[in-house]
Amino acid sequence: MELLKQRILRDGKILSKDILKVDNLINHQIDPQLMMAIGVEFARRFAYTRANKILTIEASGIAPALMTGYCMGIPVIFAKKSQPSTMQNVLSSPIHSFTRDKDYTIVVSTEYLRPGDKVLCIDDFLAYGSAAQAMDNIIKQAGATSVGLGVVIEKKFQGGGDKLREQGIHIESLACIEELADGKITFTD
Amino acid sequence: MELLKQRILRDGKILSKDILKVDNLINHQIDPQLMMAIGVEFARRFAYTRANKILTIEASGIAPALMTGYCMGIPVIFAKKSQPSTMQNVLSSPIHSFTRDKDYTIVVSTEYLRPGDKVLCIDDFLAYGSAAQAMDNIIKQAGATSVGLGVVIEKKFQGGGDKLREQGIHIESLACIEELADGKITFTD
Repeated sequence: MELLKQRILRDGKILSKDILKVDNLINHQIDPQLMMAIGVEFARRFAYTRANKILTIEASGIAPALMTGYCMGIPVIFAKKSQPSTMQNVLSSPIHSFTRDKDYTIVVSTEYLRPGDKVLCIDDFLAYGSAAQAMDNIIKQAGATSVGLGVVIEKKFQGGGDKLREQGIHIESLACIEELADGKITFTD
Repeated sequence: MELLKQRILRDGKILSKDILKVDNLINHQIDPQLMMAIGVEFARRFAYTRANKILTIEASGIAPALMTGYCMGIPVIFAKKSQPSTMQNVLSSPIHSFTRDKDYTIVVSTEYLRPGDKVLCIDDFLAYGSAAQAMDNIIKQAGATSVGLGVVIEKKFQGGGDKLREQGIHIESLACIEELADGKITFTD
């Protein structure tokens, strides 16, 4: 997605060969017009799936998931990183965050994912694939079907995307980064 | 906002005289079409403020804030509940969550709130006013101006709204609840 790539080139900050900081458009400050364009693009690419629900993970996944859900006319569920006292029956899966070097568990209420649901996963980043794998686990636990994964930015060099593609998951990444080196972002063609 | 009130009456669950659970449309599963209607309504009510930024708190504030930012054509900043390792200079303020009986600190990067900014705060719930007060603190620390507070649901009986109104803050609540009693939701006229 050309608009997104241009914004990443203009506003992204390369903190190391592993970390791209985009907290002025996605992770802390959000550009709502860009997010809507992202939603339109995901909706176009995944229209064929006839998904009836979107799953994401709080907090940075919510904005792209919400706009995609708006464009597709389907509800969005965001997995929580801690279980609220008001939520009883949950599906859960562990995640390892490499950026924060921390393990945590995401939870989704059993009320909102049901057998027969066709679920599209949306997230901000795809790096090692741990978050995507956790969403997939939760969808399987619910007896529902995962119909694809849309990520705003894929860091291809961290291998998560290729691993998931080998499992047969249809992934669409709107900006796919081949390499972060010498202060330069190289996109995959 | 009549549409919202009808949805709360249909889908909200009264867990106690203090707690209304709306996690099937706002706090866990989100209805994007309803969220857009909420964004349109906030944009209409706060158009006169000429706000140039929106501030909210992760995670449940993001959806209404994003749609409002989209309708007003301005960026949305979500305060974080923990400081990422990649974020250096922050403005911060403590919050007490009565629902979770827990204290935490919200942070906003100094990069995104500046002197001269006119900031509209958006949140999902207004109860005792602790979150709204914390956003107001952060705006003051930045030397910016708070131009109003939009909340999806105000629980008027918990007093936060009245306390903030006495401080001169312009509050718009789209559904204002007078009482939760005997399994019945009573809205303020």
